[in-house]
Amino acid sequence: MSFDRENLESVLKRRFFYAPAFDLYGGVSGLYDYGPPGCALQANIVDLWRKHFVLEEDMLEVDCTMLTPYEVLKTSGHVDKFADWMCRDPATGEIFRVDHLVEEVLESRLKGDKEARGLAAEPDKSEEKKRKKKVKEIKAVKLDDETVAEIESVLAQIDGYSGPQLGELMKKYNITNPATGGPLSEPLEFNLMFETAIGPSGQLKGYLRPETAQGQFLNFNKLLESNNQKMPFASASIGKSFRNEISPRSGLLRVREFLMAEIEHFVDPLDKSHPRFVEVADTKLRLLNKNTQQEGRTDIDEMTIGEAVKAGVVDNETLGYFLARIYLFLIRIGIKPDRLRFRQHMSNEMAHYAADCWDAELQTSYGWIECVGCADRSAYDLTVHSNRTNEKLVVRQTRETPLVTEDYEVELDKKKFGPKFKKDGKKIETYLTSRSQDELESLAAELDEKLKITVTVEGVDAPVEVEKELISISRKKKLDHIREFTPNVIEPSFGIGRILYSLMEHSFYIRPGSESRAVLSFPPLVAPTKVLLVPISNDEKFGPFLRQISAALRRVGISSKVDDSSATIGRRYARNDELGTPFGITVDFDTLADKSITLRERDSTKQVRGSIEEVVKAVQSMVAVEPVSWEEGTANLTPFTSEAEE
Amino acid sequence: MSFDRENLESVLKRRFFYAPAFDLYGGVSGLYDYGPPGCALQANIVDLWRKHFVLEEDMLEVDCTMLTPYEVLKTSGHVDKFADWMCRDPATGEIFRVDHLVEEVLESRLKGDKEARGLAAEPDKSEEKKRKKKVKEIKAVKLDDETVAEIESVLAQIDGYSGPQLGELMKKYNITNPATGGPLSEPLEFNLMFETAIGPSGQLKGYLRPETAQGQFLNFNKLLESNNQKMPFASASIGKSFRNEISPRSGLLRVREFLMAEIEHFVDPLDKSHPRFVEVADTKLRLLNKNTQQEGRTDIDEMTIGEAVKAGVVDNETLGYFLARIYLFLIRIGIKPDRLRFRQHMSNEMAHYAADCWDAELQTSYGWIECVGCADRSAYDLTVHSNRTNEKLVVRQTRETPLVTEDYEVELDKKKFGPKFKKDGKKIETYLTSRSQDELESLAAELDEKLKITVTVEGVDAPVEVEKELISISRKKKLDHIREFTPNVIEPSFGIGRILYSLMEHSFYIRPGSESRAVLSFPPLVAPTKVLLVPISNDEKFGPFLRQISAALRRVGISSKVDDSSATIGRRYARNDELGTPFGITVDFDTLADKSITLRERDSTKQVRGSIEEVVKAVQSMVAVEPVSWEEGTANLTPFTSEAEE
Repeated sequence: MSFDRENLESVLKRRFFYAPAFDLYGGVSGLYDYGPPGCALQANIVDLWRKHFVLEEDMLEVDCTMLTPYEVLKTSGHVDKFADWMCRDPATGEIFRVDHLVEEVLESRLKGDKEARGLAAEPDKSEEKKRKKKVKEIKAVKLDDETVAEIESVLAQIDGYSGPQLGELMKKYNITNPATGGPLSEPLEFNLMFETAIGPSGQLKGYLRPETAQGQFLNFNKLLESNNQKMPFASASIGKSFRNEISPRSGLLRVREFLMAEIEHFVDPLDKSHPRFVEVADTKLRLLNKNTQQEGRTDIDEMTIGEAVKAGVVDNETLGYFLARIYLFLIRIGIKPDRLRFRQHMSNEMAHYAADCWDAELQTSYGWIECVGCADRSAYDLTVHSNRTNEKLVVRQTRETPLVTEDYEVELDKKKFGPKFKKDGKKIETYLTSRSQDELESLAAELDEKLKITVTVEGVDAPVEVEKELISISRKKKLDHIREFTPNVIEPSFGIGRILYSLMEHSFYIRPGSESRAVLSFPPLVAPTKVLLVPISNDEKFGPFLRQISAALRRVGISSKVDDSSATIGRRYARNDELGTPFGITVDFDTLADKSITLRERDSTKQVRGSIEEVVKAVQSMVAVEPVSWEEGTANLTPFTSEAEE
Repeated sequence: MSFDRENLESVLKRRFFYAPAFDLYGGVSGLYDYGPPGCALQANIVDLWRKHFVLEEDMLEVDCTMLTPYEVLKTSGHVDKFADWMCRDPATGEIFRVDHLVEEVLESRLKGDKEARGLAAEPDKSEEKKRKKKVKEIKAVKLDDETVAEIESVLAQIDGYSGPQLGELMKKYNITNPATGGPLSEPLEFNLMFETAIGPSGQLKGYLRPETAQGQFLNFNKLLESNNQKMPFASASIGKSFRNEISPRSGLLRVREFLMAEIEHFVDPLDKSHPRFVEVADTKLRLLNKNTQQEGRTDIDEMTIGEAVKAGVVDNETLGYFLARIYLFLIRIGIKPDRLRFRQHMSNEMAHYAADCWDAELQTSYGWIECVGCADRSAYDLTVHSNRTNEKLVVRQTRETPLVTEDYEVELDKKKFGPKFKKDGKKIETYLTSRSQDELESLAAELDEKLKITVTVEGVDAPVEVEKELISISRKKKLDHIREFTPNVIEPSFGIGRILYSLMEHSFYIRPGSESRAVLSFPPLVAPTKVLLVPISNDEKFGPFLRQISAALRRVGISSKVDDSSATIGRRYARNDELGTPFGITVDFDTLADKSITLRERDSTKQVRGSIEEVVKAVQSMVAVEPVSWEEGTANLTPFTSEAEE
C-alpha cells in the first residue's frame, strides 16, 4: 500500500502528537507544540540518545544558555554568514526564499514538460503540501531535451548555489512571482537569527542561539579540566535552538524553534584514529559521496565504514566511527535502513575550514531530509574564539621524547654594550635580537669572518659596527617537553524534530484488510506509552486488578494507561494502535476466576495469556534497553485467540 | 559548623557545577552554563519530578514553543503587567531595581543603627555578596526607636509595594544613589520580557515566554479531548523561560534564562475536593499565613495539611493536596524540612483573580527564597483567551439530573402576523421575542386581562396592538441536560534552578575534623554520578575488573565513573565527595585473589566488602526510586576498615 501523508497527518492531529502553536490565535508558521504522545516520543528518543551516546562514551553533558551575546556569534561567523537568500515582490510585498522558489518553479516546469509529453506526473495528494506551494498550477509546456537535462542538473546541485548564482538562475529561467507573474528583486541576504536586547539599557545586543555548539566551545578549558586533561574527549548538549526561517514549510521538518542534540568530540589533529572503531568497522552504510553528486547523479555505494575509511571516502576513523554510531542509533529508534543514506557535502556546500562532512538523510514524502549532520570542523571554532578573546584554548601534553630544536641565538655583553653605544644602545639591541634565523645565519658567518658585523639600524645615523667581544651569534640546542595544540572537532549534530517526524512516516501503516485502521509501529523502547490496560467492561470488579497491574508495571519503570471507556475492546485497541502503544493487557471475566490476563502485540495482533507476574516480566524484557523479541519474551506464556480485533 | 558560602562557591566552580556563561567574553550577568555535574543533577531532579508528578498522576505533558506572539501575551496580561520598577541616575546612567534598592538601603540603616547602639551586626563573609551590593559601606548612625520599628515593618512588606508606593518610600527615606549620593528618577515600569521579531518582514512582534503556562492554556481543548473529556485532569510542561532582569544578582537565584516545571490542574469550580487528599492529609507543613505577615511578623504555624484546609487557612483540598505533594518532592530530593516553609501571598501581592496562593520558600544564605509557587488562578486564564479569540474553552458535562427551568415564551401566529402588520411585521416580531422575563410576565397578565396587548416599538409610528389570536405568552418548562463551565486552574510552578541551588546549600558540609574536605551530601537518587570506581593503583591488572563492574552497573541503569589517576585513594574519594558521589567501589590486590570489592558510603565513610554481584545489588537497592538505607542495603555484606580516608 502506498504511503498516504494526509492520512498520517490526520492521525497525528487527532491524537495530538503535535499541533500548530497558537492556533487559537490563527497560528504562527514554523512553530509547533507537542501534545502528550509527541512529547513522550520526543522524551524517549532523547533518553535513548543520552544512553547511546553520552553514557556509553562518558561524554561531558552541559546545559548552556540560549541567549547569546552579539560578540560570540560575530566571532563564530553566524552574524555574517548564517543567512538565507530572499527576494521581495515590490508590488505585493511578498517575500520568497530564493533557493526554494527556484527549485519549485523549475520542478513544476519539469512536471509540465512531462505532462506535455503525455507522461503521467505523480499526483500530489497532500492538502498541506498544496497549500504551502507557491506554484499552484502546473502548465503543460514541452521543453527541449537539452533544457530538461540542464534543469535536472541545476536541481541536483540546488543546495550549493550562492545568492548571486541564484540571481543569475532567476534571470536565465525568467523566474517571477508565481501568483502574479510580477518581477522580483535581486536576492538579498537575510540573517536567520532571532535578535533581542539583554538588560534594561537595550545596549547589549543578543541572539537566540542557532545551534548548541558555541556554548560547548566556550567552555572548552573547563571541560578539559573536568576530564582531568585527558584527550580525546567529547562534550554533548541537548536543547532548543532557533532559526528565523523566511517561509517555513514541510511541517515539523522546517521550523523556527527546534530541539537539537549535539556532540563536540575533541581530537588530536595528528591522530584521528578511534580506539573503538574496530567495534563498528563492519557496519554497512549507504553512502552518497560528493563525486557522484558533482556528476549530477544520486546513486548509493553500500559499503562497510571500515572500507569507506580505508578507501579515503570518509576522511578519518573518528568521523567514520560517529557515522556508524549515528546509523546504529537511528536503526534502534525505528528508522528503516533502506530509507537512510549518508550524503557527503560537496566542496561548494562545505565551509572552507571543514575537512569532511556527511549528512544522515532520511527519506520521507518530502524527499530526502537532512536529519543529522556529522562534520570534521578542524580547529576552526576554538581558534576563532581564542584569537578574538586572547585566551588560549589548547591542550598541553608532555612529549614522550622532547622535541629538539637548534636555533641561532644572539647574546650581547650588556656591560660593554651600554657604555659603547650610549643612547643608541637600546635600538641596536632591539634590532639585533629581532633578526630572523636566515639573517642570523649570515650575520654569524660575517662575524666569524670579519670578527665584527656592520648593520644599519633605523633611527641610528651611521652604519653600526659591533665587534666580536660585544656579541656572540651561535646555534643553541633547545628541548621542548610540552606539546601545545588546538584540538580538532568532530561534530555530530542531531535535529530531533526532523528525526521524530521521519520516524512517524517510517512507522506508519494501514492494517491490511481494514482500511480505517492506522498503526504507528514504534519500537517499544521509544513508544510514548508501553502498555494499554483494557478491562473487558467497566464493571467495578476489574478496578483492583487494573491498579495491581499498573503498580506492578510502574515498579519496574514501565508507563501504562487505562482505557475503561465503553467502546469495544477492538475499538480501544485501534485507538491505541494510532498512538503506537506496543502492548495491550486485557482483564476479563476469566481474570476474576484465575487471575490470568491477556497480552497482545500491536503489529502481529498475537495474544498470549498468563499470570500478572508472568506478563509483567515478559513486557519488561521486551521494552528493555536491549529488548528481546515477542517470540523470546512470551515463550513461556500460553497462546490465546479471541475475537477482540473484530 | 556555620555555613560558608565562599567555600561552597569555590567547590561549585572548581568542579564545574556551573559557571557564568560567556566568561571568555567577559560574561553576561544573569546567564549561567551548567557543567557536567550540574547538568546531571538538574537532569536527575527533572527526571524525579516527572515520576513524582507526571507519571504518578497521569498528567498530560506537553512541549510548547518559547517564542510567543504579542497578542497571546497581551491577552494574558504580561505585556501590561509583567514588569519591575526601575529608576535611573540621570548623572551616571546607572539603573537600579527600585524594590531591591529600597530594601538594601533600609537594611543597611538598620545595621548602622545596631552598630551605633553597640550591638554586633552579623558579619557578611561572602565576597560575591559584597561585590553585588549597591551599598558598600554601613554608617553607624543611631535611629530613634519609632523609626526602627517603622523600617522593620516596611521591610516585612517589601514585596507588596506598587511603583508609586516605592517612589514615596524613596522620598520619605531620602534614598539616593548609594555610590554618589546623587538624586534618582521616579520609578519607571520596565517590562521583563525579551522581545524579538518573527519572520522576515519584521512585522510580527513576539516575546520569549516568561512562563510555560500559556502554551498549556491555549491547548486546553485538545488536552481535554486527549483525556477523553474527563475532569479533573492536569497538564504539565518542563522547559526554559526567560526574564530580562533589571540587575541580576544572587547567582543562580535570579537569572535571565531558567528551567521551569509547571503543572496546570484543571478542576470544577464547584468541587475542589481531591480524591487522593486523604493520602496526604496527615503531612505536617510549616505555614506562614498572610495574617501573620500583615501584622509584620514571620512566625510559623506547623500543622497538617488536613487541619489547614479544614480551618480555612488553605483555600481548598486540591490546593492543599499539591502543597503536600510539593513538600514530599522537595524532601525526596534532599531539601532540609526545617529550611522549607510555605508562605501565603498577602492580598496586595496576589492577582485580583487568584483565590489563594502559597510559595514554597527555601532558606539559603540569601534569605528565604521562593522556589515553588502554588496558586489557585480561578478561571482567569481560560476566560481571557476565550474572550479574546471567541473560541470556547469550556467543559461540557451531562447533568445527572437535568436542570429544570420555567420561562415565559412568546409564540406568534406567523401566518396572520405578516398580512396584518405588513412592513412593520419584522420589527414588531423582533421586539416581542426579545423582551425580558419580567416584561413578559406583565405582558402575559395584560393579554390575559384585555385579550390584547399594546406596545411601543421603535421605528413604528403608532403604538401597536396585538390581539390574543395572534400571540400567546406562557410559561414553558425546559430541561437542560448539559452543564457547561470554565474550569478553574491550580498551578504549581517550580523554578528548577532555584531548587537546585538551595539543594546545594542544604547538602554542603565540611567533614568534621578535616577542614579542607567539603562534601555535597546529595541523596543517591539525584546525585550526578552514583558510583566512583577506584583501583588502588593504575596497574593494568585492575582494568578488566573495572570494566566488569561498570558494565554490571550500566546493565541495571546506574552511572559510574572511574578515577584511575595517581592520587591517593583518600584524595580521590575527597574529590568525589565534592561532586556528591554517594558510593565508592575500591578494587585492590585482594580483588585479584578473591574477586571481592569494597563499597564505601560518602557521609559515614563506612565500608563493607563483598562480591561484585553482591555490591552491585546493594547499590541498586540504595539508588532505587524507593531507596533503602545503607544499613538495610548492606546488611549481608562484611564490614571493612582501611586507612584509605587518611
